[in-house]
Amino acid sequence: MLSKMHGALVRLRHNKAFEFFVIAVIIISALEIGAKTYDLSEPALLITQYLDVFITLFFLIEILIRFIAEENKKDFFKSGWNIFDTLVVVISLIPVNESEMALLARLIRIFRVLRMISIVPELRVLINSLMIALPRLGYVVLLMFIIFYIYAAIGSFLFNDINPVLWGNIAISMLTLFRVMTFEDWTDIQYETMEVYPMSWIFYMTFIFFTAFAFLNMVIGIVVGVMEEEHHKERRLTEPSTKDLQEQIASLGEQLTKLQTSIDNNKVNANR
Amino acid sequence: MLSKMHGALVRLRHNKAFEFFVIAVIIISALEIGAKTYDLSEPALLITQYLDVFITLFFLIEILIRFIAEENKKDFFKSGWNIFDTLVVVISLIPVNESEMALLARLIRIFRVLRMISIVPELRVLINSLMIALPRLGYVVLLMFIIFYIYAAIGSFLFNDINPVLWGNIAISMLTLFRVMTFEDWTDIQYETMEVYPMSWIFYMTFIFFTAFAFLNMVIGIVVGVMEEEHHKERRLTEPSTKDLQEQIASLGEQLTKLQTSIDNNKVNANR
Amino acid sequence: MLSKMHGALVRLRHNKAFEFFVIAVIIISALEIGAKTYDLSEPALLITQYLDVFITLFFLIEILIRFIAEENKKDFFKSGWNIFDTLVVVISLIPVNESEMALLARLIRIFRVLRMISIVPELRVLINSLMIALPRLGYVVLLMFIIFYIYAAIGSFLFNDINPVLWGNIAISMLTLFRVMTFEDWTDIQYETMEVYPMSWIFYMTFIFFTAFAFLNMVIGIVVGVMEEEHHKERRLTEPSTKDLQEQIASLGEQLTKLQTSIDNNKVNANR
Amino acid sequence: MLSKMHGALVRLRHNKAFEFFVIAVIIISALEIGAKTYDLSEPALLITQYLDVFITLFFLIEILIRFIAEENKKDFFKSGWNIFDTLVVVISLIPVNESEMALLARLIRIFRVLRMISIVPELRVLINSLMIALPRLGYVVLLMFIIFYIYAAIGSFLFNDINPVLWGNIAISMLTLFRVMTFEDWTDIQYETMEVYPMSWIFYMTFIFFTAFAFLNMVIGIVVGVMEEEHHKERRLTEPSTKDLQEQIASLGEQLTKLQTSIDNNKVNANR
Repeated sequence: MLSKMHGALVRLRHNKAFEFFVIAVIIISALEIGAKTYDLSEPALLITQYLDVFITLFFLIEILIRFIAEENKKDFFKSGWNIFDTLVVVISLIPVNESEMALLARLIRIFRVLRMISIVPELRVLINSLMIALPRLGYVVLLMFIIFYIYAAIGSFLFNDINPVLWGNIAISMLTLFRVMTFEDWTDIQYETMEVYPMSWIFYMTFIFFTAFAFLNMVIGIVVGVMEEEHHKERRLTEPSTKDLQEQIASLGEQLTKLQTSIDNNKVNANR
Repeated sequence: MLSKMHGALVRLRHNKAFEFFVIAVIIISALEIGAKTYDLSEPALLITQYLDVFITLFFLIEILIRFIAEENKKDFFKSGWNIFDTLVVVISLIPVNESEMALLARLIRIFRVLRMISIVPELRVLINSLMIALPRLGYVVLLMFIIFYIYAAIGSFLFNDINPVLWGNIAISMLTLFRVMTFEDWTDIQYETMEVYPMSWIFYMTFIFFTAFAFLNMVIGIVVGVMEEEHHKERRLTEPSTKDLQEQIASLGEQLTKLQTSIDNNKVNANR
Repeated sequence: MLSKMHGALVRLRHNKAFEFFVIAVIIISALEIGAKTYDLSEPALLITQYLDVFITLFFLIEILIRFIAEENKKDFFKSGWNIFDTLVVVISLIPVNESEMALLARLIRIFRVLRMISIVPELRVLINSLMIALPRLGYVVLLMFIIFYIYAAIGSFLFNDINPVLWGNIAISMLTLFRVMTFEDWTDIQYETMEVYPMSWIFYMTFIFFTAFAFLNMVIGIVVGVMEEEHHKERRLTEPSTKDLQEQIASLGEQLTKLQTSIDNNKVNANR
Repeated sequence: MLSKMHGALVRLRHNKAFEFFVIAVIIISALEIGAKTYDLSEPALLITQYLDVFITLFFLIEILIRFIAEENKKDFFKSGWNIFDTLVVVISLIPVNESEMALLARLIRIFRVLRMISIVPELRVLINSLMIALPRLGYVVLLMFIIFYIYAAIGSFLFNDINPVLWGNIAISMLTLFRVMTFEDWTDIQYETMEVYPMSWIFYMTFIFFTAFAFLNMVIGIVVGVMEEEHHKERRLTEPSTKDLQEQIASLGEQLTKLQTSIDNNKVNANR
């Protein structure tokens, strides 16, 4: 009977209607979270509370179904998406009462919306393709951080007395530099320091050049690189590479050599 | 006599001079719309009113000509551009008098300018190439929306008490986040919330990273992808693919095998 | 004697030292223009006036040398750069006295700096490659203009009463929309109109989407397209295309057919 | 004994643990620089001073080890990174006491963080790939500078009387134009000059078009160009080019010609 139930669960798991129902519940949970940001009437608040319990239970049951339907239980936790789903469900089960913790509980419930990504395969593909580029981007981010750190240290040493709100210490300076990088009111900052150090525009100019420009360069380079590689891989699947052609031509050459030998033998025979 | 008139209409439809005249009327209708945004003298206003009637009638006649000139009437409505043209013409025929509706009538007349796109083939190609990328962009937009929604919910929960004008509910929060994404005075918003939550810069930093950056990445990826695909297709038309070469080489191999057989037979014959 | 002088001019024209001297004079003329923007002392002003006369004369002589050194006089005016150089020189020869015209004369002299581009070949290549992309960009600009025009007309009709400084007529509206496209204080404009039309954020959102996004898409598409085409052309010069390979393989096939015929004949002969 | 010590140093130099220790010291030196931007207590200040001495000595020893471990002493200074490292170490050895010089000493110490790049190979690769694109970018920067210079001269001539703070002389004008290029409050500048010259929006529009747009175009072109070239090179290493295929096919043709001759001879023989 257990295996019968197991089979029913597996069938349920791969049922299209069930999948759409799960997506519907995720959307409802998202709408509920959105609704809570408005001032709600008493009965509406009550409804969201009941809805909350229902969604929490539904997600718990859904994850259990998926866990039971999984043939090899160990494989279940090999997928990052499954771990993420389980975490979101388990954490939302923890009962919270105090106001401070209630805020946290609310925040955790927001992450339920992310389950949308783990359910829709196209979104998973998008995230995965971003993940491939991440390790390559890691070193670019490190380089950016070093540039930021050096400029923040220089800015903090030189401009601290001019405006401690912007250049008070290295952490604040890095925040200010991030603002400069987004071009947000950066000239106000520049004009302020130029009154004391008239040449400080060099500081901003070089910083903008190094970050905005170098960054753009490298990001484009990496993105197009990753993309072209994938394209190249894809082409490999449908079209033979020049290497395949080379081997094919080489085998023709061998056939010809064999032919030559045959004819040569033939000639010898004929001459005999 | 009817078919004679039909033939005349078909010839008119494909007449270059007629096409240029249609474009001229569209430009005049655009200029008229532009002129109406200025304070016009009484006689000038009268002219625009007469012009309006003329343009409406001309567009009606032009669409009728195109409809009659079409051999298969059903095919006419298969083209999205034809449907669009017909809609614009039909709606502008509805008589409107009241001031509120007059505004609507004016707005609809503006869309006549879009007929410029349906007339000039090069613009149609541009729009079509954008349309090809649209379905692929759909999921990116969905992903962006999920990111916006989650951050808007978090922002609304945390910052609602700080500034309800910016974080009042999830809809307003999303608008505020769109502003942050365009880097428009985003530091003002950040400094405001940092006074209560000093670590809230993480909220903005990660949001900017996830949207501006991930967005850029994916857009570039898709655009270059679509473009390269088209390029690849084009090359296929003028140049043989490596697959074609492979097949050609394979047929050479068969010819060689046949040759080998011939020679072998020959040898046998000679030896006999 | 005339042809001797002609030969000397031709040699002078292609002299590296002479070229560097011309570049030096252009740089001096640029520095002189820059110097004039500062408050100069009387003697310094006098120097710039003498310098002005010298540079004008030098450029006149230089263009004459190039014109005389040109073998076919008609070819001289076939090059856009030569026409540009001649125009700049001729216009700066016109004597101007009045204050209003003096400003114009000054402005014309600024364009002498552009001669830097016509002299340095690498810069000419850059400009030429931009020129190649221009016709293709023409239709994108037209499409952008149509989008701007439609939105400006809508904005002018709806928001004219709210802020005539920004939405007074279609021309002002287009300037305002250009500002929105550069994200420059665009939320101020949006918040203002949202007080009267709460849904007007749709106007801005769709406009930003259509312009900033569609524009970016198309620009990238065209740029990469142009670039890849050039790359493809270049590769063609150094490497055979797959078409060349196909023809080569086809000629192999013909050779084989000929061989087969030879052997068949041979067999027939042998069998006889 | 000396060569024994030399061998020990060479081994030390290539020791992974030693490398990690060097990276650790660089990170500590970076953290120390960051810590100095905060208000430190007396004992903490003392620690940083001792740390400073230790880091300076450690870097000196490390560079000496690398110098001694280098087999050919001349090769050591052929690497730009080695020269950079040596410079940073030597300069930080100069004793400075006065307050003015102390600031300089501090600034120099900041550049120690750049040693992170010279130590981590992946970062060096990133910088090197940027360096490859630099010469090609040189002319784009020159072109940008010419555009800036011309517009700054025009702006300075026309708008000097309107706002000398922004258009006082050509240097200030170039700074203002850089601000316009980053779209930072550029409409304020525009509206100000439009009150005197209502058509001055053309000045800003064309400037934005020429810089922001042309710049983007060329940068993308160059980046993708460099990248594709590298990609092409890489493909060359793993896959044969069409040229290789062409030569291979040509050699097949020769083999066939030889075969034809053999058969022809054979036929002659057989016929005899």
